[in-house]
Amino acid sequence: MSDPLLFTPGPLTTSAKVKAAMQRDVGSRDSEFIGIVAEIRSELLRIGGVSKEAGYEAVPMQGSGTFAIEAVLSSVIPPDGRLLVLANGAYGERIRQIAERLKIAVSINRWPEDESPNVVTVWRLLRQQPRPTHVAIVHLETTTGILNPIDEIGAVVREHGCRFIVDAMSSFGGVALDLAALPVDYLVSSANKCLEGVPGFSFVITRRGALQESAGWARSVSLDLLAQFEALESNGQFRFTPPTHALLAFAQALAELREEGGVPARAERFRRNREALLPGMRQLGFREYLKPECQSDIITSFRFPEDAAFEFAKFYRRLAERGFVIYPGKVSHADCFRIGTIGRLSVGDVNGLIAAIERVLTEMNVQRVS
Amino acid sequence: MSDPLLFTPGPLTTSAKVKAAMQRDVGSRDSEFIGIVAEIRSELLRIGGVSKEAGYEAVPMQGSGTFAIEAVLSSVIPPDGRLLVLANGAYGERIRQIAERLKIAVSINRWPEDESPNVVTVWRLLRQQPRPTHVAIVHLETTTGILNPIDEIGAVVREHGCRFIVDAMSSFGGVALDLAALPVDYLVSSANKCLEGVPGFSFVITRRGALQESAGWARSVSLDLLAQFEALESNGQFRFTPPTHALLAFAQALAELREEGGVPARAERFRRNREALLPGMRQLGFREYLKPECQSDIITSFRFPEDAAFEFAKFYRRLAERGFVIYPGKVSHADCFRIGTIGRLSVGDVNGLIAAIERVLTEMNVQRVS
Repeated sequence: MSDPLLFTPGPLTTSAKVKAAMQRDVGSRDSEFIGIVAEIRSELLRIGGVSKEAGYEAVPMQGSGTFAIEAVLSSVIPPDGRLLVLANGAYGERIRQIAERLKIAVSINRWPEDESPNVVTVWRLLRQQPRPTHVAIVHLETTTGILNPIDEIGAVVREHGCRFIVDAMSSFGGVALDLAALPVDYLVSSANKCLEGVPGFSFVITRRGALQESAGWARSVSLDLLAQFEALESNGQFRFTPPTHALLAFAQALAELREEGGVPARAERFRRNREALLPGMRQLGFREYLKPECQSDIITSFRFPEDAAFEFAKFYRRLAERGFVIYPGKVSHADCFRIGTIGRLSVGDVNGLIAAIERVLTEMNVQRVS
Repeated sequence: MSDPLLFTPGPLTTSAKVKAAMQRDVGSRDSEFIGIVAEIRSELLRIGGVSKEAGYEAVPMQGSGTFAIEAVLSSVIPPDGRLLVLANGAYGERIRQIAERLKIAVSINRWPEDESPNVVTVWRLLRQQPRPTHVAIVHLETTTGILNPIDEIGAVVREHGCRFIVDAMSSFGGVALDLAALPVDYLVSSANKCLEGVPGFSFVITRRGALQESAGWARSVSLDLLAQFEALESNGQFRFTPPTHALLAFAQALAELREEGGVPARAERFRRNREALLPGMRQLGFREYLKPECQSDIITSFRFPEDAAFEFAKFYRRLAERGFVIYPGKVSHADCFRIGTIGRLSVGDVNGLIAAIERVLTEMNVQRVS
């Protein structure tokens, strides 16, 4: 039996060619690999709509997305800096947790998980003493699937002279984003999300000037973003062993993004996936957690059915046995599960998932309220 | 043309089956993957000659070996702790650098790169005020290939009531090591060294009691060793996205280690590789940097020939073109290059390398002094 399809926020189902690209062993300090890393860094800037010439840099960092978030926080906030986190989910909370652990002065403003931070409140927060020097937000909160308005919030952040840190883990490459038009200083994302690579590293797209002002501030050696950048610039090499195979896979994944037609085409495929998912799920009696207007096409939270016959663990396991891996929920005040619509998945795969869910609900004797 | 053979300290040439194990996408929170991670953790303990029952734990950590070193230092040294680093190469210096960055009180005692820390000096250092609480050493300094005597030094460290941190990056799995008989509290190694997996994560083998005493000390969220352990214990999952493909590859690599006959058989293969390398290199006029008695079988530093016709960059490139990737040197006061004899390499491969070196020297008109 082939591997199940992954309807998750990542690691995802990747293409056969992406995985085939890992059938090699390359030297991490060898010229071929150095060339691949350079090409990946340029391509990431192109995907973000920016370039080296325009003053931007892409800096890959070993580890999961959280490692790159911590790399940014621990590297670019000065000792006397102050971070304001705008949070409406678990990943905003994680930014606060990391800043606290790093003994960075941090305040957090929370919105309900089904509501985006609003610009009027942010404007007010930015005028309170002590003034923040840095503001962080999650673009697409994987907790729920909500998409936050980083453009209008970013404008207010910039107006107040603060640096803007955006966790775009689950959006970059799958949601149209023109960094040249956005006041973002540090954007963080990961190889194994919308770009459809395999896990092993993440990356930061940053304004070179903002990065370079951070000399001497890094609180970690492994996660020192400026040192990582300077090493890559000086000899093209990572400071410490990179996940060579994951980078080979990523180069192939980026080639496939180009072939697909870039971010607009990929976003459109994800949109079609989700468009196929919603009516099917609604017909089976499921209701989304979020209001439609703030929902992304990347991942959707569904409330548990009210029928007591629904047990999530059993539901999950039976779907997995049928070849469909979904994702547990993370919403604080509602029982939900999540279905991702990213990765190498098509509308046909989504229809297969819905058919499997229908069969499993019948097996479990869950009543449908439709 | 097939990929070159990697005569490096890693990433290495791995087996075809190790790479083939990455031809799958598995969910990072799915039961099959959880089972694989649990099996890997148990197997790492077996390789170290210890077990959960005997009070040991294996904790994988995303990122390169340096990330796991920093995870240990930043997690297990209390705020009022003091680290003593016993250094005879660049990786000892890196431990000091990390501790300084983390604002941990640290002192370093340096030995020449071709000499091991000696136990009499260590005994004296441990009695100096302020007394260290933790002592760190590199087992096999990849800088040169020197193997340091962690058994006798560990005994003195233990006698003085200090915790002992061992960087066994380039030795674990390739050098016989019985952790049950060694006073090591934290041993750090990596997936892509003697265990012949692919890069993407590293791991710590630790006494559970020593790890658990560190509650509240972690200086990082990403690199929080105790939190990583507790998450793996509570639900079998990594806290943050693991490099799923690298872990699948590693499970296969560990199976191949068992098939080969465990660490003794692997150490013997590495010994034969190096035994084939030395006379060949000497015949071509190369001299080792280290005295034979402190040299490991893992990696060997060779001095540049005295002939001015020898240019390392050209030598390296021409060997790479012939399918053999060697490694630059890292010794401070001597011009050297390094040849690793680990990874899926045989005596036949070593002989192929020597033949290629001979041809390249001839092309470069380098005189042989034999």
